Amino acid sequence: MGKNRRRRSQTLAKRRTQPGAPPGSLVVDPSAESTLVRVIGYGNGGFHESVLSDFTKLDSIRRQHPTVWIDVTGLGSESTLRALASQLGLHPLAMEDVVNVHQRAKVDEFSDYLFVVARMIDGGDAYHSEQLSFFVKPGLLVSFQERAGDCWDPIRQRLKHHRGKVCEGRSDYLLYALLDAVIDSYFPVMEQIAELADGVEEAITLEQNGTHLMQVHELRGQLLALRRSIRPHREMLNELVRDSTSFIEAETRVHLRDCYDHTIQLIDSIDTYRELTSDLRDYYLSTVSNNMNEVMKVLTIISTIFIPLSFVAGVYGMNFKDHSPWNMPELGWYFGYPFALGLMATIACGLLIYFRMRRWF
Amino acid sequence: MGKNRRRRSQTLAKRRTQPGAPPGSLVVDPSAESTLVRVIGYGNGGFHESVLSDFTKLDSIRRQHPTVWIDVTGLGSESTLRALASQLGLHPLAMEDVVNVHQRAKVDEFSDYLFVVARMIDGGDAYHSEQLSFFVKPGLLVSFQERAGDCWDPIRQRLKHHRGKVCEGRSDYLLYALLDAVIDSYFPVMEQIAELADGVEEAITLEQNGTHLMQVHELRGQLLALRRSIRPHREMLNELVRDSTSFIEAETRVHLRDCYDHTIQLIDSIDTYRELTSDLRDYYLSTVSNNMNEVMKVLTIISTIFIPLSFVAGVYGMNFKDHSPWNMPELGWYFGYPFALGLMATIACGLLIYFRMRRWF
Amino acid sequence: MGKNRRRRSQTLAKRRTQPGAPPGSLVVDPSAESTLVRVIGYGNGGFHESVLSDFTKLDSIRRQHPTVWIDVTGLGSESTLRALASQLGLHPLAMEDVVNVHQRAKVDEFSDYLFVVARMIDGGDAYHSEQLSFFVKPGLLVSFQERAGDCWDPIRQRLKHHRGKVCEGRSDYLLYALLDAVIDSYFPVMEQIAELADGVEEAITLEQNGTHLMQVHELRGQLLALRRSIRPHREMLNELVRDSTSFIEAETRVHLRDCYDHTIQLIDSIDTYRELTSDLRDYYLSTVSNNMNEVMKVLTIISTIFIPLSFVAGVYGMNFKDHSPWNMPELGWYFGYPFALGLMATIACGLLIYFRMRRWF
Amino acid sequence: MGKNRRRRSQTLAKRRTQPGAPPGSLVVDPSAESTLVRVIGYGNGGFHESVLSDFTKLDSIRRQHPTVWIDVTGLGSESTLRALASQLGLHPLAMEDVVNVHQRAKVDEFSDYLFVVARMIDGGDAYHSEQLSFFVKPGLLVSFQERAGDCWDPIRQRLKHHRGKVCEGRSDYLLYALLDAVIDSYFPVMEQIAELADGVEEAITLEQNGTHLMQVHELRGQLLALRRSIRPHREMLNELVRDSTSFIEAETRVHLRDCYDHTIQLIDSIDTYRELTSDLRDYYLSTVSNNMNEVMKVLTIISTIFIPLSFVAGVYGMNFKDHSPWNMPELGWYFGYPFALGLMATIACGLLIYFRMRRWF
Amino acid sequence: MGKNRRRRSQTLAKRRTQPGAPPGSLVVDPSAESTLVRVIGYGNGGFHESVLSDFTKLDSIRRQHPTVWIDVTGLGSESTLRALASQLGLHPLAMEDVVNVHQRAKVDEFSDYLFVVARMIDGGDAYHSEQLSFFVKPGLLVSFQERAGDCWDPIRQRLKHHRGKVCEGRSDYLLYALLDAVIDSYFPVMEQIAELADGVEEAITLEQNGTHLMQVHELRGQLLALRRSIRPHREMLNELVRDSTSFIEAETRVHLRDCYDHTIQLIDSIDTYRELTSDLRDYYLSTVSNNMNEVMKVLTIISTIFIPLSFVAGVYGMNFKDHSPWNMPELGWYFGYPFALGLMATIACGLLIYFRMRRWF
Repeated sequence: MGKNRRRRSQTLAKRRTQPGAPPGSLVVDPSAESTLVRVIGYGNGGFHESVLSDFTKLDSIRRQHPTVWIDVTGLGSESTLRALASQLGLHPLAMEDVVNVHQRAKVDEFSDYLFVVARMIDGGDAYHSEQLSFFVKPGLLVSFQERAGDCWDPIRQRLKHHRGKVCEGRSDYLLYALLDAVIDSYFPVMEQIAELADGVEEAITLEQNGTHLMQVHELRGQLLALRRSIRPHREMLNELVRDSTSFIEAETRVHLRDCYDHTIQLIDSIDTYRELTSDLRDYYLSTVSNNMNEVMKVLTIISTIFIPLSFVAGVYGMNFKDHSPWNMPELGWYFGYPFALGLMATIACGLLIYFRMRRWF
Repeated sequence: MGKNRRRRSQTLAKRRTQPGAPPGSLVVDPSAESTLVRVIGYGNGGFHESVLSDFTKLDSIRRQHPTVWIDVTGLGSESTLRALASQLGLHPLAMEDVVNVHQRAKVDEFSDYLFVVARMIDGGDAYHSEQLSFFVKPGLLVSFQERAGDCWDPIRQRLKHHRGKVCEGRSDYLLYALLDAVIDSYFPVMEQIAELADGVEEAITLEQNGTHLMQVHELRGQLLALRRSIRPHREMLNELVRDSTSFIEAETRVHLRDCYDHTIQLIDSIDTYRELTSDLRDYYLSTVSNNMNEVMKVLTIISTIFIPLSFVAGVYGMNFKDHSPWNMPELGWYFGYPFALGLMATIACGLLIYFRMRRWF
Repeated sequence: MGKNRRRRSQTLAKRRTQPGAPPGSLVVDPSAESTLVRVIGYGNGGFHESVLSDFTKLDSIRRQHPTVWIDVTGLGSESTLRALASQLGLHPLAMEDVVNVHQRAKVDEFSDYLFVVARMIDGGDAYHSEQLSFFVKPGLLVSFQERAGDCWDPIRQRLKHHRGKVCEGRSDYLLYALLDAVIDSYFPVMEQIAELADGVEEAITLEQNGTHLMQVHELRGQLLALRRSIRPHREMLNELVRDSTSFIEAETRVHLRDCYDHTIQLIDSIDTYRELTSDLRDYYLSTVSNNMNEVMKVLTIISTIFIPLSFVAGVYGMNFKDHSPWNMPELGWYFGYPFALGLMATIACGLLIYFRMRRWF
Repeated sequence: MGKNRRRRSQTLAKRRTQPGAPPGSLVVDPSAESTLVRVIGYGNGGFHESVLSDFTKLDSIRRQHPTVWIDVTGLGSESTLRALASQLGLHPLAMEDVVNVHQRAKVDEFSDYLFVVARMIDGGDAYHSEQLSFFVKPGLLVSFQERAGDCWDPIRQRLKHHRGKVCEGRSDYLLYALLDAVIDSYFPVMEQIAELADGVEEAITLEQNGTHLMQVHELRGQLLALRRSIRPHREMLNELVRDSTSFIEAETRVHLRDCYDHTIQLIDSIDTYRELTSDLRDYYLSTVSNNMNEVMKVLTIISTIFIPLSFVAGVYGMNFKDHSPWNMPELGWYFGYPFALGLMATIACGLLIYFRMRRWF
Repeated sequence: MGKNRRRRSQTLAKRRTQPGAPPGSLVVDPSAESTLVRVIGYGNGGFHESVLSDFTKLDSIRRQHPTVWIDVTGLGSESTLRALASQLGLHPLAMEDVVNVHQRAKVDEFSDYLFVVARMIDGGDAYHSEQLSFFVKPGLLVSFQERAGDCWDPIRQRLKHHRGKVCEGRSDYLLYALLDAVIDSYFPVMEQIAELADGVEEAITLEQNGTHLMQVHELRGQLLALRRSIRPHREMLNELVRDSTSFIEAETRVHLRDCYDHTIQLIDSIDTYRELTSDLRDYYLSTVSNNMNEVMKVLTIISTIFIPLSFVAGVYGMNFKDHSPWNMPELGWYFGYPFALGLMATIACGLLIYFRMRRWF
């Protein structure tokens, strides 16, 4: 768990570059994966896929294919990124956001392209989200991701085999298809959390122990991380659906609205489970405290009854000499012992009756 | 209870289809009920009801009757659903929402129909809600539900026997009538929860035990589930009432406003009971802790008084030899025993006075 | 208290009619009071008051008097209500809301009248609110209430004796005057709750006991009920003040704004007292727990000091034979007893010093 | 403290007049201070100050001076207030608000003047706020306050000695100057609360006792009262700054914006301190409970170790006859006593090791 | 820590000047640093830097350089500030805000300049923020700060060495560059808090002690202070980005939007960590209370078992004479002692079985 936490503080709050760097500086993280640029051209039945290093070839590819997807993985090669940005005319501030991978999901409209940031859940771990950046203009989509490996292989397959609507589509439809896959990547994590939460709830009703508490705490942390990742997508998608930007066509808006609905559904689930785990923790604590109180009460009642009895026994254990009639004459009585036992029984019964009358057990 | 929870995680967070499936794929749940399509044509005094398997007959039915209600139950037959969707020109994304039954209530306007999703409470169980989907255009309403059995039989009766306004109505009025029945289905569940909550409150003021705690927790869970189901209806109905969509006539808006008012009333009740059960849980815990404190205090005071007394008795029980005048001369005193008893009484009274002075009992 | 709660669940969540009834059905509650229709005509110096059973006379009364107030008490007579509604052309949905007395305050504009619902506090009991419904059009106001007995007698007196602005006024001013009296009916209840809360707070600072807890809980319940009743009035009055409906004149809007201010003031008071009682409960629990801790600490310290002492006494009470020099030689010492007492005193002092050093008392 | 609370319930929720009184009735509080009307005329270098009883002289004063400030203190003389209102044409509803001194800050625009209500902190006590009412029209400002004594003397001095911008100003600038002084009156109270809160926080980190709890509770109560007073000013000033009312000039709006900023700053401070005291209370309780747990644990461990030892001693104190070899042969052993002591030491060490292994101390 | 708190109350709530001072009075804090005015002229390849005391020279500098930055540090010299303000025509109310260094971040538009307030984190301490004020008009930016030493040296270097976009830029771009550096100053503090929080969380899962509690409390206090500083920047930057003020050019808005995004990101992190520390505190308390309960239960069970045993031993320690067959015949039995031990063992086992059956351990 410690590892998760450590990771979290690295994700949550990061300044973009070293203080004092001029805004819009492109400074890559030295530990980032090295950059690989793949180009996919498609539409009109054609299909082209290649790994690109010389970006001047881009123009010819774009002339041959109605739509081109430049799929960049790894953000570690500064020169490659710079060359690509200058070739395509991408704004330095946007490129800065691309390499500083702690952005919230957002959409910024520039004069000749749309800049979109989204976050994908990585490896089924709620604390890990990978930043994805997109530049969209008619006929071109550029996507950047931190690491190779994503949820887009089915889309690439569909493009390759000319299957599905995405092949006829334009770059804005491709953006939708990619975003849709990103939002879908949250569902398995959420389902897993939901199942864990339900499991914990079931377990708590049977028996309470500290592990449950830790699990609930851990789930709450995951839900918080998840909500932090997913929530900005709502606003981002809402802007894409409603704004009258010319980069998104009406037909694609219908699809994005669907994607927006799924986001709302996710946020709704997360909020519900936040409340539910809060209820759960309260219930756990109440139940534990209730049970504990019951136990302690019974134990204390047992002690309280025996302590006066022990006192009586202690009194009759005192070693007073019997040369004086005042010195514990009971000890010499014929029925002294039964009398003492009777005294104890009386005290015990008296206390039991008193406790019962006050409804203490 | 475990069963309820398990169900909940199945309801809350579900991805629509397998990851990577192209958006708009119609993949039915293999465990879904098989599809039955009933057609009801009415208006102008006519009435027609039949189970339909060949959808090409639809056109002739629509020509004969001003309004046609296609009432689909069960979402398990992919081919039937596909045929119906293609016959009526329903959008694949909408059809995907129809078969993935974890949508929130919403309204989406397409160019030639309105797509509405609502959720009905099923079998009086707050954790169970069934998804209902509607396509409305002039003269036609298509409704989809997960299972046979619903709250619409009175409406079908009224259509059959030409009773009530719904018979003269148009498809938008029929939509209203159906939604109205759906919202009404929440009231008995809410009433039941309210009565349970009141019962628990009454019980708690008389006696506190762990069962009450579990009941309050259970009620809170039901209220959360209920709120999650009903809340999106507010927005959905609000859009139907206010939007200038041409699919809803002004006269029907008046009725939908009424339906909207009932939804607000429900949400209001749910929120009030959420707060109330929260108050109730706090009250329970406060009372238990208060009572427990009282009990523990009295028990501890009893112990605390007897422990020093036992100590005194223990001292006089020590077996020191009496060959030395320093070795417990009291044991040999004439009034040694009364003296010891007096000492104990003094200690006990002293402690009692001290405790009373500090207002500890 | 139980009675109050029971009543609450009856108020909070009620479906309007039996499930499946067509919308707009007028089904009266069989236990409702029977209907009495009083007509008051006034304006231009004239005044007419009568109990009406034949509604065809209404037209002539309306011709004689500029303004007519139809004051209906009791909602039990279906035929009377139906006759009145049809005579005045009131919408069935509105009439349904009139007889289903669990509506929230609201205003609905129909084409030829305004329909207003408000709730009056009944008999100074926060859990009891009575529904009032109004239809307003130029020259006519129809009011419905559940039971005879209200806060409007002063207004009736003023109308009768031609006193005050209400007599010159129009039907919208009459509506204002009636609503103003309704909002005023909340103040005494709120004042009473405020005084009780202040009393409890004062009491808690002096002494804590479980009754205070119950009182705070009870007050919170009342505030919740009160807030639920009054809050929708804010929106309702806001609509009356701002909307450009033609049924309310500008001059009357000035007065309604005043009424709106009072509502805001009430809601503000209720919210403040909700927070205050929450603070109060927390304070109570903190104080009790704090005091209890103090008590338990002292008691436990006393026990903890005496238990080792008793142990020492117990050791010297063991009956080992003195034939061996290893068997408790202290018992035979000349200063054995003082030595034992000294040992005990040393242990006690040691513990006291240790406890004090760790600041435990 | 009790006195403060009592006052609070008198402040929070008050109905304006007796129920049933016609709206707009001017009924003064019999306990109110008697009314004193001072007139200050200024502008163009002139200055006039007098106590006025005959309001017909007002016209001549207004003719001589560009701006006239009618400064009314005390709201106890009904006839004086009536005369003034009728002379100046003030609306009865506004006058009713003037004498019912439990209004929230607000601004109402009437056709020929602006009616403004504000609340001033009185005597540095957060629970005490005094209502101030203003009527503003070009060349005239009427102010009403409950009691003589306010924070406006510096403004009066500046007017008298022709110092500062207020002397050239118009009535709307005078309004600003007065409101600015009113908002400023909150700062010392807030500073005092902030210092107390910081003091309590410092004290709590050193030592926890019940007084701190009471102080935190008291501070929270004061913050609640303060927030309730100040918060409506935000909306009021916002309306004055933004609304296109003709009674406030653009130049004055710049100044009112400054005043608005201060109000926001105050509310922000209050909210921060509400959160801070809530954190503080939680911290106090956590710390106390944490310390208490530590203490109880150590004490209980001590008891738990000695109780089995005492039991062993008790066993060897039993008076079984030694005629049977089965009756406690240890008592007759040569090393019986060391054996018993060793047994006890073993038990004690065993328990200590066990407790340590389970990390209980 | 005490020092931090003390500082806080000095920061949070301060009235601007002495009560009664006319609005817009320029009263400097006597303890403020003395004022130093540096002028930097740049643009068109030129660069001028000087310390200015005679402000009449300003005009000639402004004629020589397209953009002039007047960089004022220290707010202690009233005459210098007055001279500067009159030379540049700065509004007295704005100047008052400049010297009263407890303003929230804001933007006020005056007719011929924009007035912007921001707060910079000072010395990496969340409780310390320094107020920065800016006046912007075409070709001129005036900045005021409380103390020498800031985060702007890299910008000064870039201006001096003609590096970066800021050199070509206009005054609004300079404003952006400065604000960007200010927002960046929050990130290291936030990172530090995040790391501390993660460290505490890790520590708490291993072992719970009161220091963690104090650390969490301290972190929450810092987050509250940080949020209070940063939050108003959101609104301020939003106004700069969206408002159609002519002082900010479209190109600069793109950059300010980036700055706005960083602010949102910060606030988001702070809110997440507020929730997280709240969860953490709850988790700490739950765990401690859970562990404590376990410990107390075991200890109490041990006591409860031995107390009845001690009682039995006490009974057999009573000194009843054996002249009567009723006086503890067991003491004389041949197997009396084994019988007594057996009795004790039976009681102990019975209790253990009973406790186990009720699942108490």
